[in-house]
Amino acid sequence: MNIAVVGAGALGLYYGALLQRAGHSVRFLLRRDYQAIREKGLYVTSPQGDFHLNKVRCALDSAELGPVELVLVGLKTFANHRLAELVAPLMTGETCVLTLQNGLGNEELLAEAFGADRVLGGIAFLCSNRGEPGIVHHLGQGRIRLGEFRGGLSDRATVLAALFSDAGIPCEAVADLQRARWEKLVWNIPFNGLCALTGKTVTELLAHKDTRREIQSLMAEVIAAGNAQNLSCPIDAAPFIAQMISATEGMHDYRPSMMIDRFEGRPLELEAIYGIPLARAAERQVEMVRVAMLQALLDLGEKH
Amino acid sequence: MNIAVVGAGALGLYYGALLQRAGHSVRFLLRRDYQAIREKGLYVTSPQGDFHLNKVRCALDSAELGPVELVLVGLKTFANHRLAELVAPLMTGETCVLTLQNGLGNEELLAEAFGADRVLGGIAFLCSNRGEPGIVHHLGQGRIRLGEFRGGLSDRATVLAALFSDAGIPCEAVADLQRARWEKLVWNIPFNGLCALTGKTVTELLAHKDTRREIQSLMAEVIAAGNAQNLSCPIDAAPFIAQMISATEGMHDYRPSMMIDRFEGRPLELEAIYGIPLARAAERQVEMVRVAMLQALLDLGEKH
Repeated sequence: MNIAVVGAGALGLYYGALLQRAGHSVRFLLRRDYQAIREKGLYVTSPQGDFHLNKVRCALDSAELGPVELVLVGLKTFANHRLAELVAPLMTGETCVLTLQNGLGNEELLAEAFGADRVLGGIAFLCSNRGEPGIVHHLGQGRIRLGEFRGGLSDRATVLAALFSDAGIPCEAVADLQRARWEKLVWNIPFNGLCALTGKTVTELLAHKDTRREIQSLMAEVIAAGNAQNLSCPIDAAPFIAQMISATEGMHDYRPSMMIDRFEGRPLELEAIYGIPLARAAERQVEMVRVAMLQALLDLGEKH
Repeated sequence: MNIAVVGAGALGLYYGALLQRAGHSVRFLLRRDYQAIREKGLYVTSPQGDFHLNKVRCALDSAELGPVELVLVGLKTFANHRLAELVAPLMTGETCVLTLQNGLGNEELLAEAFGADRVLGGIAFLCSNRGEPGIVHHLGQGRIRLGEFRGGLSDRATVLAALFSDAGIPCEAVADLQRARWEKLVWNIPFNGLCALTGKTVTELLAHKDTRREIQSLMAEVIAAGNAQNLSCPIDAAPFIAQMISATEGMHDYRPSMMIDRFEGRPLELEAIYGIPLARAAERQVEMVRVAMLQALLDLGEKH
């Protein structure tokens, strides 16, 4: 399949590399890594085995990447004001766009620009960081859950999930993308924010009794807000929280993307992970008191 | 009057210096500033005029300061495990102890050690910082509200208030010390904690819309908890919050003591300002959700 990767950070580079290694024709829209990848190709380090792609199709302008069958979006959401413009040259009437971006509101932006039936969304459970230009470090996990923006389980989503799985990316098609997005927020909202705010890793947060309690309370707030969004079936709070905590205990000293963004002086993905979820909760008269406080303190630390 | 100052930080040094300048016999229990003050006396810089005390009675051991009529306690509350031991050598059967420490629980400790009728508490509205050893900077304000630990307006409290006022420390005796303590917490809980956590001054916090909203919400939580404590009359939330915010807007880029403690690597006064107030609220079935979250994040940053 002809695939373009827009927003080739740690996530886009890693998934794109696996797809190319599996034989797909992958093209990367690059910025920081352009020169390095042109000269030396793309290196992936991974507990599942390092590998190197010698020849990588890439460009600084998406017009040079031509139309494709699938656009994979990994752009940081704080750059979403450029999303439609970056994706447009890659589209034909048949192209699908799969956004693997964080948080809420990304599918809506793409649907507005290209039509709702072009758009799928996916949630990536991936621990990866960028290294030197041309190098991406896969630290663990990598599973994707994807589904139609319009809802329901489509053949197209099932085919895409199989294509990803065949490339070594465990992938599941889901009927209720919205539910999957809220489930992911149950993790992202406490851990991304608290790690970015305090400079502590997920392991340090969980080792501190009172912070662990706050994480559980933040998760409960997110679940209550998600369950007010007409999900196909509600998230069962107690077991889901226990499962999230237990999974996170396996991520030894993991530093979420937002923590790294703050360390490196980049803007945080506050609108997608906090602003829009808070607005969706408020629309359904659900208050997320702790989430709102966390958002305020994160935003306070931004350059305005 | 013979007065001993225990815990001679910015607050103890400033008030002690004013009392000595007014003619009282003041003795300071010192640690960091001992050598400097022995050699060069005590310097006070103040918008109301700098002054210097050439001869200052001080010691490293309170036994050397002999019994006095009034003990003024300015000790950081994280050193409260030593409070009774530091004060004991200064006491006779007639000595009063006035604690000007932050938060809740200090009068109780002194009452347990020396009897409840020896104990008064006071709330200081003082902007001051320590400078080099032997120098204290008075930045503004300085008013004290003091009252009996046992409650009620006593002659003794009224006499003490007059003595302070005569020394240039505006002072008012109050009948309900408990209420005055909770009123002060309405300021201390949001501003001390948020400044220490985020490294921003009170002015920066108030200039940020969402943080300003959180400050008001934190204040409302504290008022609700305070009003559940059998105060002589409840704190009227809306006007009190408005007044606190407006007063803080006059403190240009003020850095509260807890922020300075964190910058300088000292422990924070978490138990007196957060832990005990949270416990008192819980005893009355009042939940302070935001306060608990703030405490957790502050404690997370402590050395354990």
